[in-house]
Amino acid sequence: MAVKQKVLTGITTSGTPHLGNLVGAILPAIEASKGKETSSFLFLADYHSLIKKLDSKLTHESSFEIAACWLACGLDPKKVIFYRQSDIPHIFELAWILGCLTSKGLLNRAHAYKAAMSDNELSGAKDVDKGITMGLFNYPILMAADILMFSADIVPVGQDQKQHIEMTRDIALRFNHHYGDLLTPPEASISKLTGVLPGIDGRKMSKSYNNTIPIFADEGSLKKTIMKIKTNSLEPGVPKDITDCNIFAIFKSISKENDVKSFQKMYEEGIGWGDAKTYLFDNLSLFLSSYKKEYLKIIKDRDYVESVLKEGANKALEVSTPLIEDIRKSVGIKGF
Amino acid sequence: MAVKQKVLTGITTSGTPHLGNLVGAILPAIEASKGKETSSFLFLADYHSLIKKLDSKLTHESSFEIAACWLACGLDPKKVIFYRQSDIPHIFELAWILGCLTSKGLLNRAHAYKAAMSDNELSGAKDVDKGITMGLFNYPILMAADILMFSADIVPVGQDQKQHIEMTRDIALRFNHHYGDLLTPPEASISKLTGVLPGIDGRKMSKSYNNTIPIFADEGSLKKTIMKIKTNSLEPGVPKDITDCNIFAIFKSISKENDVKSFQKMYEEGIGWGDAKTYLFDNLSLFLSSYKKEYLKIIKDRDYVESVLKEGANKALEVSTPLIEDIRKSVGIKGF
Repeated sequence: MAVKQKVLTGITTSGTPHLGNLVGAILPAIEASKGKETSSFLFLADYHSLIKKLDSKLTHESSFEIAACWLACGLDPKKVIFYRQSDIPHIFELAWILGCLTSKGLLNRAHAYKAAMSDNELSGAKDVDKGITMGLFNYPILMAADILMFSADIVPVGQDQKQHIEMTRDIALRFNHHYGDLLTPPEASISKLTGVLPGIDGRKMSKSYNNTIPIFADEGSLKKTIMKIKTNSLEPGVPKDITDCNIFAIFKSISKENDVKSFQKMYEEGIGWGDAKTYLFDNLSLFLSSYKKEYLKIIKDRDYVESVLKEGANKALEVSTPLIEDIRKSVGIKGF
Repeated sequence: MAVKQKVLTGITTSGTPHLGNLVGAILPAIEASKGKETSSFLFLADYHSLIKKLDSKLTHESSFEIAACWLACGLDPKKVIFYRQSDIPHIFELAWILGCLTSKGLLNRAHAYKAAMSDNELSGAKDVDKGITMGLFNYPILMAADILMFSADIVPVGQDQKQHIEMTRDIALRFNHHYGDLLTPPEASISKLTGVLPGIDGRKMSKSYNNTIPIFADEGSLKKTIMKIKTNSLEPGVPKDITDCNIFAIFKSISKENDVKSFQKMYEEGIGWGDAKTYLFDNLSLFLSSYKKEYLKIIKDRDYVESVLKEGANKALEVSTPLIEDIRKSVGIKGF
């Protein structure tokens, strides 16, 4: 029997899930988890959320909402290992070990840290590290521990996270060089969708840009958001290009090939932006309806969500426990 | 009933214990642990040792030797909580949480990191972070977690560690400000002995200077080491000053007041350095003999040492478990 490939996906639990998360991470991961050739690890990176905001209510509620969201979107907790990062203490112990093998220079070059430093430089701050916490600086190490603790072969990420997977590989190889081959250097799998799904302003859809399309909002606010999508100023009747069109990109991300072709034809025939938006709204609303119905049902049953995650934690611990024991032994931490 | 003060002492498990450790940390901690007004936490900081050297055999054996050493020196595991850091996973989880509350700027100013950077600058390295790992950079955070996880009131340290206790206070106060008063900002207690005990070359006795006096060496090597102690070149018969004398400082650290006075008299009467060293050797050898006898007995019984530490870990976990649960809740990591 062939060994199954392990695919690991984490999602930070800050803010409500948006369409970018849904089509870029949640649905592909759920789809992939149905394949018999892979075994899937999906986890709520709740301790990562402390990097962004020290808001305990937000951390807690986002974690719940996102768990409910994955379940509503079709995640089958019998087929995947679905857990909270915070339920696996081994991850934090491994993060310490990995830190002792990670040169500070590597983290000096991490994107997230460099971006924060460059913000400080631009704003003329005297200290380039102003407002930067060790949570942000250490973030790639915790991410490496998240991945290596479960020997993930494949980590589906956006282009912006590719560097962190490379760092994880570096750290794993250094560990293996020192202590023997215990860790699995992962491969990044760059989702094309994650790479390109634009928000309503045309930049990458992201909480930080405040340009997201909500998944579970009521029809009224969903329509309002769709109507705000930026377009060019071509008049109705003028044929339109589907490339670089935010409406089209969003439509494509939720539609079957045939529907995409039909919509493309409408562009060629000069559909007006208002009509295109309405068409997108109708299709998106339909696309989201079953998820939304399920979500509204699930969030009423907090005990169910809790029990699913507890069960997932037990399954995850079955994987992490023997590996952390081997890791401990290899670094010299063991009983006398 | 008055609440007992909690005193916490950690010892890094790299290298064999030396006289500086014995008189500066081990014996005072054991003495303090006998007081009824304090409750003592003593731990082997085994995961800290990975910062200094990635040598699994050394990590493991040092940890064992140091545990055996504390027991041989009179530690009563019924009266104190004696445990291995690696047996308390909560410490690493707390370290992550604290990191999210610690500004990177604070760690940029930490002594150990600055010393390593300045070594790089002096050697003309292009990268000031050359060879510096995240273990070294994160060290004050793990130390803060070690201390705060057990709500220590007092941490006996050498002068060189005072800054880290101040950082721990800073981090604790920041946590309490954000999340409510859960953490206890500790006070440093600077041991005078730790501050001044010289090694055989007159610098502070320290593994890093290779100037230590072993505790459990055979008589021959002990004598050899003592004979190497640096002195000035005053001839026998010439009265000698006890201040700034390495032999005298070491003698004083192991002797009762009356014996110190007698030795001072010999200095005034012009004892020769050879005789002074022999006198120190005789007294030191006697001082160490009971510890050595006990040590040689204990190291033959590895199961005993293991069982003592396992029991200690259970007691430590009884303290850390309710606190980490409160901490988790306060930051928003809790069940739904």
